[in-house]
Amino acid sequence: MLYTFNPIAYVRSPYTQKFGIPRQPQLVPAARADVVLDKRFSKVSVRGLVDFELIWVQFVFHGILDEGWTEMVRPPRLGGKKKVGIFATRSPHRPNHLGLSVLRLEGIVYEKGHVILNCSGADLLDGTPVLDIKPYLPFIEAYPNVGSGFASEPPSLLDVKWRNEADKNYLTTEVLALIEQSLAQDPRPAYQKHHQDEYAVEMGGYDVHFRVIEQTVWIESYQLKN
Amino acid sequence: MLYTFNPIAYVRSPYTQKFGIPRQPQLVPAARADVVLDKRFSKVSVRGLVDFELIWVQFVFHGILDEGWTEMVRPPRLGGKKKVGIFATRSPHRPNHLGLSVLRLEGIVYEKGHVILNCSGADLLDGTPVLDIKPYLPFIEAYPNVGSGFASEPPSLLDVKWRNEADKNYLTTEVLALIEQSLAQDPRPAYQKHHQDEYAVEMGGYDVHFRVIEQTVWIESYQLKN
Repeated sequence: MLYTFNPIAYVRSPYTQKFGIPRQPQLVPAARADVVLDKRFSKVSVRGLVDFELIWVQFVFHGILDEGWTEMVRPPRLGGKKKVGIFATRSPHRPNHLGLSVLRLEGIVYEKGHVILNCSGADLLDGTPVLDIKPYLPFIEAYPNVGSGFASEPPSLLDVKWRNEADKNYLTTEVLALIEQSLAQDPRPAYQKHHQDEYAVEMGGYDVHFRVIEQTVWIESYQLKN
Repeated sequence: MLYTFNPIAYVRSPYTQKFGIPRQPQLVPAARADVVLDKRFSKVSVRGLVDFELIWVQFVFHGILDEGWTEMVRPPRLGGKKKVGIFATRSPHRPNHLGLSVLRLEGIVYEKGHVILNCSGADLLDGTPVLDIKPYLPFIEAYPNVGSGFASEPPSLLDVKWRNEADKNYLTTEVLALIEQSLAQDPRPAYQKHHQDEYAVEMGGYDVHFRVIEQTVWIESYQLKN
């Protein structure tokens, strides 16, 4: 028996490529994203939702559908060295490519016939198809002290420094925070962490070039994306 | 763009009809259920999962697909009097009929070619198709103090009493706990709460007859289901 779903919404995100997206939601508070509901849903479909601080987004990892799935993966958390089962991870390379993220609901607006949920802490690729939105219910979903295997602590952060401090002046506060918080997460693939090569990442409308030396990300330069 | 999913697993649950299923997971710890993975997934697909106490189950509300969805619903929590938007609730009558439950992972076994996740705190109908399993990550998913609108507290419980105390002796401890904990949740539809009629509910292999008087559920009788 197969089940077919029609997205209820699409995401507008500052992350326009997979590389550089935080590996979980809420790691980058500055990552603002909009969940744009389809026009078939009117304002009443979200009545009462604004009283919830957090929402669940169930979505499709559409950017990697062509990459399929694997039974075992090497989580970045384990340095890319140890394999664990796909169902013991949040890797996108899973059967059905179904994702789950908790986003902070900053507000709800209505524009050109669309209900739009303004969110923060996003870890979603621009254009992500959303299959459902739900309120986060702390009384049944908040368990701060449960055992959680290899993912028992937040990932450690890198320091972020600019090769030319003056470069920061040309960015909005929002984009600056987005870039710095995202790069502090160390977006490099686990198996490449011994390199000190320059990487380019696309976010917030810019191509950002960086290098990682020891525990510091050095932002080398950026260009407005065409 | 439509997305088609093939279930990765099916649920074996003591809840064999919709009526009587707890409205959220973890409200009835005695509700044991098995998530039976399809044979195409071997043991390695869950390697490492046993170290997580809780798992997310993303599933289809298959028992109400023919009932469609509505833009607004009357949550039982609000006494069935007030309407809120479907996306502000966890009602199953939602577009895509996609569900999300956090279950306690009690153990993993391997039987006749199937990986089986033994879980508790289930709120799932027997036969539920499962689209994905994920580990619960407290460092990004546990927010005990966030605002949560009309659902800021657990639902209040009813007392449970037996018309004939001796009836309890013929049930296993497990089934007894399942019945008592489930009925304490007050399964009656919100709009029928003024009645004192007898209800019949099917769970754990029994038909259980009960009545609610004031704040007490009276279990009148039960029969082994054919």
